[in-house]
Amino acid sequence: MEEVRNHQIVLKHYVNGFPKETDLPLVTSSTIRLKLPEASTAVLVKNLYLSCDPYLRGRMSKTQGSYFNSFTPGSPIDGLGVAKVIDSGHPNFKKGDLVWGATGWEEYSIIKTPDALFKIQDTNVPLSYYTGILGMPGLTAYVGFYDICAPKKGEYVFVSAAAGAVGQLVGQFAKLSGCYVVGSAGTKEKVDLLKNKFGFDEAFNYKEEQDLDAALKRYFPNGIDIYFENVGGKMLEAVLPNMRTNGRISACGMISQYNLEQGEGVRNLSHIVGKSLRMQGFIVTNYFHMYSKYMEMIMPLIKQGKICYIEDVVEGLESAPAALIGLFSGRNVGKQVVVVARE
Amino acid sequence: MEEVRNHQIVLKHYVNGFPKETDLPLVTSSTIRLKLPEASTAVLVKNLYLSCDPYLRGRMSKTQGSYFNSFTPGSPIDGLGVAKVIDSGHPNFKKGDLVWGATGWEEYSIIKTPDALFKIQDTNVPLSYYTGILGMPGLTAYVGFYDICAPKKGEYVFVSAAAGAVGQLVGQFAKLSGCYVVGSAGTKEKVDLLKNKFGFDEAFNYKEEQDLDAALKRYFPNGIDIYFENVGGKMLEAVLPNMRTNGRISACGMISQYNLEQGEGVRNLSHIVGKSLRMQGFIVTNYFHMYSKYMEMIMPLIKQGKICYIEDVVEGLESAPAALIGLFSGRNVGKQVVVVARE
Repeated sequence: MEEVRNHQIVLKHYVNGFPKETDLPLVTSSTIRLKLPEASTAVLVKNLYLSCDPYLRGRMSKTQGSYFNSFTPGSPIDGLGVAKVIDSGHPNFKKGDLVWGATGWEEYSIIKTPDALFKIQDTNVPLSYYTGILGMPGLTAYVGFYDICAPKKGEYVFVSAAAGAVGQLVGQFAKLSGCYVVGSAGTKEKVDLLKNKFGFDEAFNYKEEQDLDAALKRYFPNGIDIYFENVGGKMLEAVLPNMRTNGRISACGMISQYNLEQGEGVRNLSHIVGKSLRMQGFIVTNYFHMYSKYMEMIMPLIKQGKICYIEDVVEGLESAPAALIGLFSGRNVGKQVVVVARE
Repeated sequence: MEEVRNHQIVLKHYVNGFPKETDLPLVTSSTIRLKLPEASTAVLVKNLYLSCDPYLRGRMSKTQGSYFNSFTPGSPIDGLGVAKVIDSGHPNFKKGDLVWGATGWEEYSIIKTPDALFKIQDTNVPLSYYTGILGMPGLTAYVGFYDICAPKKGEYVFVSAAAGAVGQLVGQFAKLSGCYVVGSAGTKEKVDLLKNKFGFDEAFNYKEEQDLDAALKRYFPNGIDIYFENVGGKMLEAVLPNMRTNGRISACGMISQYNLEQGEGVRNLSHIVGKSLRMQGFIVTNYFHMYSKYMEMIMPLIKQGKICYIEDVVEGLESAPAALIGLFSGRNVGKQVVVVARE
């Protein structure tokens, strides 16, 4: 049985501070046999789309007691992706199946715990959507908004990193729920998308605001009921005094803090007491049991054109390191996806 | 009808930073007629016990949009207390009734909204308890621990300001719930009380710890499930990395921050995301409907000697300003009460 090349993205060493492309070199020396050994219960896949997600930054550092494991220096990194089954030793999967779930940043991967894979049933949508609106970021937006924030019609919703993989959905969910929603993003292009494509009531470029507190007061003269937190740091500090009594903060991520050796201090947390705020963190992997319910809700919305999704797609595994690192400077517009192969 | 003297504690001016006794002068020039006008629906009371509570600090500053109103400079301040009805124009109250609720820091007060007063039914306990274990701090501990934290047997509980009006009860509630509980306080005397009087499993003096994170790791090698937050700032920052997944933080108060012009920054809030923490602020006045349920629970525990309560009682309205201000340096041991009159 022939072996084929298997290009891989490897973590060179643990990273401190802002990651660089050279921390994630492409290794071209590896090969793989495209057949599983007899008696294997694994699944061999060809990777099609890889998902660039902010949480991967944490895995590039040496961490202890975190909800994810660090990558191993010198080894290929892994994340979520869409893949095609090439060979299967697992009864639930057969050659030709399309799946999404945890896979390697490489051309082919052997997945030893295929039970964690989701089989893709509906292919009348872009397959890459299973890294985004139909995958982990979609479920994140769903759980983080509906479940954590319990929105009510007419409430005031603020979303940071609003043009990102999760934020663009939260804004649309808020509109579907009859809320007033404002998003922040880091470029004029993204702000235009928020207002013109995703239907946010208002949007602003946080990089152009001298005073985030004043900006929030401008867009929320009556205050904020729900803050969907993707960034942390100075934005959170600006949001807290603008929260309304009994407000809810869904703590989905704090991307502004991930590359800092020492996080920015938030100095006004006593608003949590005074305004009876609830701030709730969550990890979407604890909600995967809700995925089928989410699919029932989201798939018709997509097909009826009631919800849209913007992806930022780059071609080729060799483009993956720059795409991932670009998340932290906001280079991506919408969900960042890497095409490894189209079929 | 004769008028009598009515000594009063007045806010001299709005306060910035740490309050001083001279910010709260005793004014001796006021008098009051001990009879309500005809057709009044108010209640005239003689104040017996006044409650010194940290939230009063906020009312000494000029605030906007807070859950409490600022005091008015030049006027007597008000708070919670125990009082005896001298005259009543309200059908629910008659001369001789004992009540607790909002009253003035003065010898006699006219209470214009007596509906907010609680009538004291059970006097087989120290009357001053209605400023503490049988009053607002008691209900605070009850709501903040049982309702907000939803404790389970065997969980690890940390309480800051644990010898205070609320903390001492939270620790005892935690033990009654089968939890492991550790408290922090600021003197050896208080630490001894926590361990020997209130039955905390462990206690430490935070002022003697060079490294709060290390102290918490020492007492909680397996981490903290529930943090009852009374202090904020550096302690919260030390607690966050020691929280366990799905931990709960009851944000009751942040006394360490109340006198700072700029709060201390908490730099590691991303633990809220990574550990799926819930941080919930609350204001006890929104839970007064639970007071009778709390009384049914707490009164038998007191009478059976299953719960105890320590008060720090000072005599005389003239001692009230120093007693209140002493809260912010931790001078009080247990609930700080001022006796204005004993009957």
